[in-house]
Amino acid sequence: MTDRNGASRRDFLRAGLAGGAAALATGTVARAAGPDPAITEQQPWRTMLGEGVDARPYGAPSQYEAHVVRRNVEWLTADPISSVNFTPLHELEGIITPNGLCFERHHGGIAEIDPAKHRLMINGLVDTPLVFTMADLMRFPRENRVYFLECAANSGMEWRGAQLNGCQYTHGMIHNLVYTGIPLKYLLDEAGVRTNGKWILPEGGDAAGMTRSIPIEKAMEDCLVAFKMNGEALRPEQGYPLRLVVPGWEGNMWVKWLRRIEVGDEPWHHREETSKYTDLLAGGKARRFTWVMDAKSVITNPSPQAPITHGRGPAVLSGVAWSGRGTIPRVDVTIDGGKNWYQARMDGPSFDKSMHRFYFEFDWDGSPLLLQSRAHDSTGYVQPTKDELRAFRGYESIYHNNGIQTWYVNEKGEAENVEVS
Amino acid sequence: MTDRNGASRRDFLRAGLAGGAAALATGTVARAAGPDPAITEQQPWRTMLGEGVDARPYGAPSQYEAHVVRRNVEWLTADPISSVNFTPLHELEGIITPNGLCFERHHGGIAEIDPAKHRLMINGLVDTPLVFTMADLMRFPRENRVYFLECAANSGMEWRGAQLNGCQYTHGMIHNLVYTGIPLKYLLDEAGVRTNGKWILPEGGDAAGMTRSIPIEKAMEDCLVAFKMNGEALRPEQGYPLRLVVPGWEGNMWVKWLRRIEVGDEPWHHREETSKYTDLLAGGKARRFTWVMDAKSVITNPSPQAPITHGRGPAVLSGVAWSGRGTIPRVDVTIDGGKNWYQARMDGPSFDKSMHRFYFEFDWDGSPLLLQSRAHDSTGYVQPTKDELRAFRGYESIYHNNGIQTWYVNEKGEAENVEVS
Repeated sequence: MTDRNGASRRDFLRAGLAGGAAALATGTVARAAGPDPAITEQQPWRTMLGEGVDARPYGAPSQYEAHVVRRNVEWLTADPISSVNFTPLHELEGIITPNGLCFERHHGGIAEIDPAKHRLMINGLVDTPLVFTMADLMRFPRENRVYFLECAANSGMEWRGAQLNGCQYTHGMIHNLVYTGIPLKYLLDEAGVRTNGKWILPEGGDAAGMTRSIPIEKAMEDCLVAFKMNGEALRPEQGYPLRLVVPGWEGNMWVKWLRRIEVGDEPWHHREETSKYTDLLAGGKARRFTWVMDAKSVITNPSPQAPITHGRGPAVLSGVAWSGRGTIPRVDVTIDGGKNWYQARMDGPSFDKSMHRFYFEFDWDGSPLLLQSRAHDSTGYVQPTKDELRAFRGYESIYHNNGIQTWYVNEKGEAENVEVS
Repeated sequence: MTDRNGASRRDFLRAGLAGGAAALATGTVARAAGPDPAITEQQPWRTMLGEGVDARPYGAPSQYEAHVVRRNVEWLTADPISSVNFTPLHELEGIITPNGLCFERHHGGIAEIDPAKHRLMINGLVDTPLVFTMADLMRFPRENRVYFLECAANSGMEWRGAQLNGCQYTHGMIHNLVYTGIPLKYLLDEAGVRTNGKWILPEGGDAAGMTRSIPIEKAMEDCLVAFKMNGEALRPEQGYPLRLVVPGWEGNMWVKWLRRIEVGDEPWHHREETSKYTDLLAGGKARRFTWVMDAKSVITNPSPQAPITHGRGPAVLSGVAWSGRGTIPRVDVTIDGGKNWYQARMDGPSFDKSMHRFYFEFDWDGSPLLLQSRAHDSTGYVQPTKDELRAFRGYESIYHNNGIQTWYVNEKGEAENVEVS
């Protein structure tokens, strides 16, 4: 613990001893010859052989982690086939989202594509239309980059006020992965983009056939045609065998099950960029394109799904922050609703357009808390309050809510989603 | 592609066109109104709805990736309960090993520990013996670090010459993960290490009760008591709920199912550091402690399990390198058994004591190849040849074989494990 916590360390020491008395005895016996009946009962795994190396060719989490799963909100959509589930942020640490827990969003269910039959076509305003097999693509130079993907609607239900009780639901439409992919520029150069080719239209190979218009500058700058996530093949719900990676931009543009990229001279204004993914403003007008995800943060522990259970004394506050415009050099944290702000401890790798992890260790005196975090990104932008956003955006918006989140923690350590003005 | 490959790019372009003719038609139809019977047959997923967001609360790989698994070598050990399986390095990319594919090594099978009943004791030469519950540990400051873990016996079967046909088997006793854990120093300071406390003995909570002696300096420097891997809880086969992380040192010291840390004034010389994990030398003497894993690399593609199937022209060579003493600023690659060496392209994040990814793009002329990689670490150390190692270590060794690996590729693109002198 830090020196700041010196005083309470003694208390903690005593707590540790008291709580562990029984196990201390166990520890002693651990060095005795044979198994002790009491231990066999308390810790049976110490006296029995477990599964061998042939039991699980592909591993799975412990039976005691069965509660750590993606969850959907049944009332949110008419059908789970065109719906979303949420990453359990309150159960995760560091900055990498495990592949089994990355939130899903699809409009026609999960396409189960046979990579041997899959093709990627590049057509439109190019010198030579091309069609690539997966084997063709494996012959291009590849890169490995860490990026967050956030759904434009993440925190969307919070526009009207505190709605959902848990960061999994308020902020869980995000994941952060290491992608292996081919720079899209290499493939576009192979086809030869004509001088009047100013936009691209990636198309999904699933039943929904998702399409979005993307400026050629972004396509050439840092987009990837990705085929691996965290080292292994993309998961089916993440676009296996190919997905477009559009760093820092809203998730719906990261077209999954990528089958075609058309080059054109103007945006297409398809369904998913007109009736959806446009932002209604307070005045009744709507913003046409809002691609970049602005700086945002959330405290993952404590939070409504992860209350304080240890009582007063040393406590660890943990959270994540990200920005579609760069890195996160600084996050501020308050435990009293903004009266006092402290600079959080940033820990772990920092990458451009990637999730960052922050911590704040404090001594809880047992009184109620109002927890908030405020991200600063490398451009100098500071995460706004929800009310600051509403002044311009109104209450009828759905997308791009990056306002500061508040958790109220009561004397028992229970937390809930609230708003403070 | 790079300019160096300019000439062959044309060829590749034609190849791409020819190979994709059928799919080009598919692509055209993609913009027609209704589904075409031919497409429905070729790509059925385009005309049917898939599974919804409620289908898999915890995800799994595509059915078409069922071959990407850990594999054990049946003849290697008498029983799978005290054995090892291997990470499929030839199927992976980047530097992060997916949790489901991290090789396993255990001496008594996989302990299935209930975290509510688990305890960590610190005893021996300390002012105050302590016992921690998992909840107690969650109150300490934590860190996130990326480290490789390599079994001391990785490549051990190659001492006598080329034995196993595939990098999964020759080099697959390694994984590279983001760990979240508590610096061991914080816990030892909490107990108060006495002035005569010079060594620690971590003990596993499984039936085998693994123990190793570790100098207090290393324990205080960078060891972690880890509880997460790649963001989620440790997997059972990786020590759930607690494992010791000993950066850069041989894997058997990273005690899993960690239940006790004893502080002593000298090494214990237990079974696993005397009859095992010591190195027999050419002269018949044995080295007592060889903790650090020296710089090493291997080409993962092409390799015996991942032959060249596309014929001559642009090819991507991919591989991994690591060092227990620092980072890997440079890897050299040869395709002609050492006549010519080229500096590989390092890509992706570089961390101390972590795996690194390297690439070499070349045009294959269809003639046989002898592929080798040679790692340089940040201390200036250069990976040796197997013969250079044998001159000092002999042929009877098992552990710490970090010699240069050779793959022979024939005219058909098939690869095999060979040795060149």
